[in-house]
Amino acid sequence: MMRDLPQPSAQALVPFVSVAEMMAIVHRIGLEPALVDLTARIKADFRRWRLFDKTPRVAAHSPIGVIELMPTSDGQRYAFKYVNGHPGNTRAGLQTVTAFGVLSEVATGYPLLISEMTLLTALRTAATSALATKALARPDAKVLALIGNGAQAEFQALALRAVCGIAQVRLHDTDPGAIRKCARNLRAAGLEVTACDSAEAAIQGADVITTCTADKRNATILHDNMIGAGVHINAIGGDCPGKTELAPALLSRTRTFVEYEPQTRVEGEIQQVAPDYPVTELWQVLTGDCPGRTDPAQITLFDGVGFAIEDFAALGWLYDQLRPETPRLDVIADPDDPRDLYGMVMRAR
Amino acid sequence: MMRDLPQPSAQALVPFVSVAEMMAIVHRIGLEPALVDLTARIKADFRRWRLFDKTPRVAAHSPIGVIELMPTSDGQRYAFKYVNGHPGNTRAGLQTVTAFGVLSEVATGYPLLISEMTLLTALRTAATSALATKALARPDAKVLALIGNGAQAEFQALALRAVCGIAQVRLHDTDPGAIRKCARNLRAAGLEVTACDSAEAAIQGADVITTCTADKRNATILHDNMIGAGVHINAIGGDCPGKTELAPALLSRTRTFVEYEPQTRVEGEIQQVAPDYPVTELWQVLTGDCPGRTDPAQITLFDGVGFAIEDFAALGWLYDQLRPETPRLDVIADPDDPRDLYGMVMRAR
Repeated sequence: MMRDLPQPSAQALVPFVSVAEMMAIVHRIGLEPALVDLTARIKADFRRWRLFDKTPRVAAHSPIGVIELMPTSDGQRYAFKYVNGHPGNTRAGLQTVTAFGVLSEVATGYPLLISEMTLLTALRTAATSALATKALARPDAKVLALIGNGAQAEFQALALRAVCGIAQVRLHDTDPGAIRKCARNLRAAGLEVTACDSAEAAIQGADVITTCTADKRNATILHDNMIGAGVHINAIGGDCPGKTELAPALLSRTRTFVEYEPQTRVEGEIQQVAPDYPVTELWQVLTGDCPGRTDPAQITLFDGVGFAIEDFAALGWLYDQLRPETPRLDVIADPDDPRDLYGMVMRAR
Repeated sequence: MMRDLPQPSAQALVPFVSVAEMMAIVHRIGLEPALVDLTARIKADFRRWRLFDKTPRVAAHSPIGVIELMPTSDGQRYAFKYVNGHPGNTRAGLQTVTAFGVLSEVATGYPLLISEMTLLTALRTAATSALATKALARPDAKVLALIGNGAQAEFQALALRAVCGIAQVRLHDTDPGAIRKCARNLRAAGLEVTACDSAEAAIQGADVITTCTADKRNATILHDNMIGAGVHINAIGGDCPGKTELAPALLSRTRTFVEYEPQTRVEGEIQQVAPDYPVTELWQVLTGDCPGRTDPAQITLFDGVGFAIEDFAALGWLYDQLRPETPRLDVIADPDDPRDLYGMVMRAR
């Protein structure tokens, strides 16, 4: 009797997107088109908000940093991201934030994709700011103040140009080298750039203010008296307990929007105010369940800390970019007979 | 003025242990010596129990399976494992349980190692059973009954031979093909094997009984009246809510040992009994804080569900086996200037 020899299942070899592969994908699509795609993908998943398992991230804190796991699932697919935050890393030439993640199939538990996510996180964070800005800023917004000109800054500016039509960027960072780096990069990308020697100077005439500083402490990047009517603020850098960027008094004047309230109460700017301080989850604006900006004079605040559904959306987008030639990792043991893992090991001798 | 060009940091390329590499490492060391090493490593980490961050695993349940993240840290290193459990997978030629994991440095958050863990989990689970059996079984134990002859079975038997001196194995599984597979493998490894057509027959004369069945339901593999005095039981297969292997009445006659009580109360055999049912954590026996077996006639039970510190220990052991030629993954974005992630992307164009 003939019997076909069992073949290793296709699922045992998992597509792997390295840093180099991620950069190649971004260049194949174009950075700004990729940011536009990602913004649309995150918007679509935010509009399906109720379908997702939502858990605050699982954090392992140490005196000098944090390592976090951020899982979520929509019932069909499961994703998690591993991400660290170590502000002192740059002194050793290392990244403050690095990340990698996995997208899996809920039906089998098998991974569909393993990917670098340092770069993908920068892209999805910028896309999420753009999504919030598009939903909340005045439609005629043209001028962005960007406070904090580190690794995240250029992506923020380019996402806001691609999605919201920002044309001018005003930069400030406590590190003049960071301002120079960011100005050089954004001018090369065709933005009109003004380097400013204080946060106060940077926000002059800005319609949108994005703060993305990295110090792990309660810093006050924006004081209450600095902020005029009609501005939209993306506060991105304050993203863990004890790390904030805005003066608490400013929060009394903003209409405040968050990703996932239970997480933001602990990690966001609103950790500084009372637990009953009113916030709206951004997805509710996107579905039309809640209003966004209702008056051009309002100050809207997106208190962004980063949420697992953004990573889920980003990994889903990335999965659609895979090609047959994407490298595969031999990471799933796949014995011919699933009961015979031992036999597989012995035959490999 | 001369300036050295910055080099990519060594940490940006992360050692990767594929399934093939894991099998090569096991064969380089030898399977039983590797199981002995792992048992010693888990024992050493269990004796440092108080140093570890301990969290029950983070589970995403679906009607047909579960995906779990199992993190822990001793303050110097951090580890997590991704593991699924999908009993229906074997029908599609896939593994019920697959796993991979990461070991990281707490000081930087950078990964030290990414590894397959399907095979490594089988090894550490067997090593943990051997550790418990060595601590709790009668020292003259020679005969093992192994109920459930699937992917985990041979590793259990060989760890118990290498660590505890088991010489004879009595097998039973509801699937006769699994018994034949396991008997063939264990005879080839030099064990004296008896295939039995019932669990009752298998446990005749056994000093140690290991149950490692895979059905996701409350099955009764061992009835109360089957078990005589002096036996040690490793109940390994019951490891999630609704999945148990022992009759509750049997638990009234056992002295019961667990890994991490809060997790085992939910996932282990003891989910069937009152929340104040007395248990001892195994590490307390290993440190001498609590007695193990105090009478040759006692029935001791290790209610094993698998805990993150075992994976931490296994990844630490694996890290020590790495060689310069171990493949590296380009998974950490490493710009020359950590503030200039965007510049790195643009230069890759």
